[in-house]
Amino acid sequence: MSTVSIDLGTQGYDIHIGPGLLRDPAEFRPWIGGRQVFVVTNEVVAPLYLGRLLESLAGLQCESLVLPDGEQIKNMESFARVLDAMLAVPCDRGVTVIALGGGVIGDLAGFAAASYQRGVPFIQAPTTLLSQVDSSVGGKTGINHARGKNMIGAFYQPRRVVIDTATLSTLPPRELSAGMAEVIKYGLINDAGFLGWLEGNLEQVMRLDTECVDYAISRSCANKAGIVERDERESGVRALLNLGHTFGHAIETATGYTTWLHGEAVAIGMVMAAHLSRLLGRLDDAACERVAWLLERAGLPTKPFHGVTATRMRELMQGDKKVQGGRLRLVLLESLGSADIVDDVDEGPLMETLRTFCLDG
Amino acid sequence: MSTVSIDLGTQGYDIHIGPGLLRDPAEFRPWIGGRQVFVVTNEVVAPLYLGRLLESLAGLQCESLVLPDGEQIKNMESFARVLDAMLAVPCDRGVTVIALGGGVIGDLAGFAAASYQRGVPFIQAPTTLLSQVDSSVGGKTGINHARGKNMIGAFYQPRRVVIDTATLSTLPPRELSAGMAEVIKYGLINDAGFLGWLEGNLEQVMRLDTECVDYAISRSCANKAGIVERDERESGVRALLNLGHTFGHAIETATGYTTWLHGEAVAIGMVMAAHLSRLLGRLDDAACERVAWLLERAGLPTKPFHGVTATRMRELMQGDKKVQGGRLRLVLLESLGSADIVDDVDEGPLMETLRTFCLDG
Repeated sequence: MSTVSIDLGTQGYDIHIGPGLLRDPAEFRPWIGGRQVFVVTNEVVAPLYLGRLLESLAGLQCESLVLPDGEQIKNMESFARVLDAMLAVPCDRGVTVIALGGGVIGDLAGFAAASYQRGVPFIQAPTTLLSQVDSSVGGKTGINHARGKNMIGAFYQPRRVVIDTATLSTLPPRELSAGMAEVIKYGLINDAGFLGWLEGNLEQVMRLDTECVDYAISRSCANKAGIVERDERESGVRALLNLGHTFGHAIETATGYTTWLHGEAVAIGMVMAAHLSRLLGRLDDAACERVAWLLERAGLPTKPFHGVTATRMRELMQGDKKVQGGRLRLVLLESLGSADIVDDVDEGPLMETLRTFCLDG
Repeated sequence: MSTVSIDLGTQGYDIHIGPGLLRDPAEFRPWIGGRQVFVVTNEVVAPLYLGRLLESLAGLQCESLVLPDGEQIKNMESFARVLDAMLAVPCDRGVTVIALGGGVIGDLAGFAAASYQRGVPFIQAPTTLLSQVDSSVGGKTGINHARGKNMIGAFYQPRRVVIDTATLSTLPPRELSAGMAEVIKYGLINDAGFLGWLEGNLEQVMRLDTECVDYAISRSCANKAGIVERDERESGVRALLNLGHTFGHAIETATGYTTWLHGEAVAIGMVMAAHLSRLLGRLDDAACERVAWLLERAGLPTKPFHGVTATRMRELMQGDKKVQGGRLRLVLLESLGSADIVDDVDEGPLMETLRTFCLDG
């Protein structure tokens, strides 16, 4: 079992990583102040893991809300639905909200916890690789809007993150791959040593070897934690975490969040960022190839795609919330293990990258 | 002109109080970082003051949303509407939200500012006495729910509060009285000297004598600020600010927020709190009379009323968000100028107070 501590002063918390943690009351009880717990989960996760979580919470007043599965429920209607359900209990101000599920459930439940009576305690129990290494660290919560992803939300830290790695055994292979996109991202932007380890151990991680999975998750969380601690509200270095995301979000928005998984969109987005870095003379051909090859081994898309034109992509990238004062900000690679935030990317190379990857013109 | 500084470390800000401040660009410009401003106001305030505010913001990209007037718009639908309008512009992450109006507009716009892209800068320009002395200090933002007031929201501090006291000249007398309820509350809970000043100068304040109004507002804000600074997230002394509010919220909820103004409900709630304090031997008869008499001179309700039964009141008080672990917490008076938070009020005296004031049984 591993622990990653997030040092944010009074807002700090621990992430516990290990197999079977959902069955252990000691993982939850010390962080629940009141007598009420409200669990938010979905219809895929509930039959698998809600029962064992509720057993660990025996003796408390537990209520749960089981939502449909999928990114499309991460919206204003579901936000209102969670709050309505909490008020119907009624939950008081000492209630602890537990998110049991992937990033959609974590982001939605976290925003509800942040907003319920102006903020109640919150515990994350992420059950997908993506949410374990990404959304459970950093305190970003929120919902999507027809005009863009994560446009509405709050910065809100959990009291505790409980990562039961045993939940990965029921994760569809496609979602395991999607999570690997973010794992590889940490290596690319910040940690050449970890990237080398991944190149040597990728298949063991994908096979869910217990020790390798634990190591990959804890090193990913530690990487993200190190960046978040330096920059809780995303004014500086935290933007590095967006490698591949400006491209990726545009793809997801263009396709209505239905064709690509988030991690898949980020994977192709990272390949595009590497491509653009190469065009700008920041990265050599061999490094660019290594990025694509590692992602491909993880079962992720790395090739040009249909479904959105370069012009539409460019337009959507301009609407991204990282745009300030009309200037597009992109994360580019300097080398494998180091990235940079670039504010003034030339339109020429950018459009060349978009046209290379957008097969519909 | 007066300034009250709110000292909350990096979240601190100044409140400026004086006649004509909306016409002064220097009151706003230094606190607007980007080039975009989004003004939220309502159909009563807009014709009176939106034009002069927009003149002070000349040169910036200003968009505004004019909502209907009234507490009933402080809901999830309006919250979504503000965010939809901001996304339609589209506002970027550097946008500054300005709330021009009373507490409803301030609370709603503040919650939208807190949630838009996880938080954008926010300026309050309150135009009612109530919002000037109450909701503009302390960072509470939020919306109501059918199951209770202010059940959904965020703690979110403005960059600046600009109180143009000239706006009070167009405030209906009933709303001026409602604001005085909170002014008097500060005297009652925390400031015997101010209470004495109010007993001597109430009519000058109600007549909008410039100096008296400035003094009443700044001393009110300073009182609230002193309490909020000691306790930003309302775990301790901040609860004193709820004198009369647990009774008042129950009255408002029972009557659907339509019969009573918030300040009126708080006024009768403070009379009820004084009555209960007397029953419990905490306050003498003469002090109890002084409370009612001062509120009456300010044009506020102090007498038993129709429209809700004692049993329904008790039930609604239990649903208040100040209830934790099923225990009702009330603010009671110890003397004029000093209050106390009481967790274990006996049901007998409490029901006696409710039955005394609820004429419908």
